[in-house]
Amino acid sequence: MNLNEDEIVKKLAKNSNGFIGDDSAILRSLDSEQYVITKDLLIENIHFRTSYFSAKNLAHKALHVNLSDLAAMGATPKYILCGIAIPDNSAAYAQEFLENLLRLCIEENIILIGGDTTKSPDKISISITAIGACNPENIKYRNSAQNDDIICVAGFLGYARLGLFVLENNLDLGTYYKNFCLEPNAKIKEGQWLSKHKSITSMMDISDGLYIDVKRLCESSDVGAIIDLDKLNLDQQFVEACKLLKFDPTQVALSGGEDYSLLFTVKGSKFKEISNSFFNTFKYELKPIGKTISSKEISFHKQNKPIELKLTPFTHFGEKL
Amino acid sequence: MNLNEDEIVKKLAKNSNGFIGDDSAILRSLDSEQYVITKDLLIENIHFRTSYFSAKNLAHKALHVNLSDLAAMGATPKYILCGIAIPDNSAAYAQEFLENLLRLCIEENIILIGGDTTKSPDKISISITAIGACNPENIKYRNSAQNDDIICVAGFLGYARLGLFVLENNLDLGTYYKNFCLEPNAKIKEGQWLSKHKSITSMMDISDGLYIDVKRLCESSDVGAIIDLDKLNLDQQFVEACKLLKFDPTQVALSGGEDYSLLFTVKGSKFKEISNSFFNTFKYELKPIGKTISSKEISFHKQNKPIELKLTPFTHFGEKL
Repeated sequence: MNLNEDEIVKKLAKNSNGFIGDDSAILRSLDSEQYVITKDLLIENIHFRTSYFSAKNLAHKALHVNLSDLAAMGATPKYILCGIAIPDNSAAYAQEFLENLLRLCIEENIILIGGDTTKSPDKISISITAIGACNPENIKYRNSAQNDDIICVAGFLGYARLGLFVLENNLDLGTYYKNFCLEPNAKIKEGQWLSKHKSITSMMDISDGLYIDVKRLCESSDVGAIIDLDKLNLDQQFVEACKLLKFDPTQVALSGGEDYSLLFTVKGSKFKEISNSFFNTFKYELKPIGKTISSKEISFHKQNKPIELKLTPFTHFGEKL
Repeated sequence: MNLNEDEIVKKLAKNSNGFIGDDSAILRSLDSEQYVITKDLLIENIHFRTSYFSAKNLAHKALHVNLSDLAAMGATPKYILCGIAIPDNSAAYAQEFLENLLRLCIEENIILIGGDTTKSPDKISISITAIGACNPENIKYRNSAQNDDIICVAGFLGYARLGLFVLENNLDLGTYYKNFCLEPNAKIKEGQWLSKHKSITSMMDISDGLYIDVKRLCESSDVGAIIDLDKLNLDQQFVEACKLLKFDPTQVALSGGEDYSLLFTVKGSKFKEISNSFFNTFKYELKPIGKTISSKEISFHKQNKPIELKLTPFTHFGEKL
């Protein structure tokens, strides 16, 4: 089976509300909102393997990795463009990927407005551009944390990394952690909710691991941080799974990437209110994992005392699958 | 040399007018204009080879391939996002690519607002998303050609294909045609100029070859076309170069892709006026290569008589480099 670009475009065009079919897609003007835009690549054998990522898994992940960047700004996803480079022997997989992507878009009320399909010599390469809209007053940035804010996480830490390890080594640990790796869910609703609160001083998503992303947020904001290891709030099941695999759960929680949880800072005086209100809305607890400090360093505390920790952070360029 | 994603992002951020450095980039609101958006992939050994594409060539091509889609709508390029997947042994090449891309953006008054850099197992993969702005009243589409319009081309036909052949076979034919393949120039100014004329009924760029793109324009517009082979206006130098390489010049002009010339239709009564005015503005002649007809077929004329021609159009999925 070989894919024909015109055929794909025609098929997608039917569901694009008139967007697809020309050289460029038109973004309708917004009255009181602003567009935000992001782009992420997914490369075969770097970000995924077709041996354990079904086309459905991959469509979910490719979409949500991008939606997570929109969530981190507090935006509502509106449009995507999808570029995909397809080796001859992956045509059926690519077709199924595009069908699933389209289905997810329809479910999420997102319009696929354009893209590019092309041949690839041997690996699948996917590039999604996602566009969201938000009220300019509510947009949250990563460079606006202030000294003495509470650093919070909404979502899991290290679960996707554990899942990746299980998948890579074909271990028998059930589907629970694997699913965090295969189909992470962008925290769109949480991002929108948090963005409406003035007391949230900064926000970003955690794509490369808590430690490295706290570092990025702090560098952007010109502050430092103390991460309180007792507040990572790792549940017993996760701790036991880590131990079974001979991992230190704290290290996995700090370094494991791709959970797409939200990292944000909140004014200390408002934390309790935000935390309660968040729990009432989303039915899970925020994790207040530390606080910002004026000194530019990132350090760790355990039982209220400083502790030395050596971490090997997950980075795209250094990663080993 | 290994690339560090954070270092790249920091370097690009300095030149991004504050756009880069967060999860998503913000598109400022437009008052009277509308955004248009497009995306194209360039895959190593499908769209380019590093053996004869310098990093500077590739940056030019990757940018202009996208700008051409904006030109085809009559838009002014404003922003790009660039995703690049880089194998370890191509880090220096990728660095030079990004530096050249940034330089070109500055020259063209385009802001690089975001993107993604990641590792690739063995091939470079580039994805650019380009955003332009245009007056909504002036946007040109490919689905609005009418019966009995003159079909015109602004730009060369088949030159890039000839250049590709010369490059692929390492032939000694000077640099002239090679440059059309290595550094095609999007017809941005022509696109903007044409879009301001109400008599231009439809427009698109020619990326996959004249014949296939006329076919696309006609299918979108629900018309057919007669292409007049005497009007391709192939210059003597091109004809001789084709013959030297044992190609039929007409076939190369009809099937050769990647010239990024503009294809458009103009009302018959206005053609002379547009043609003269275009020549006065751009100092080269438009080619009135045929006309639209109500019957849905694409046929060829030579010396005012129908002629049968069998073409092997250039397509991304069928192409052989």
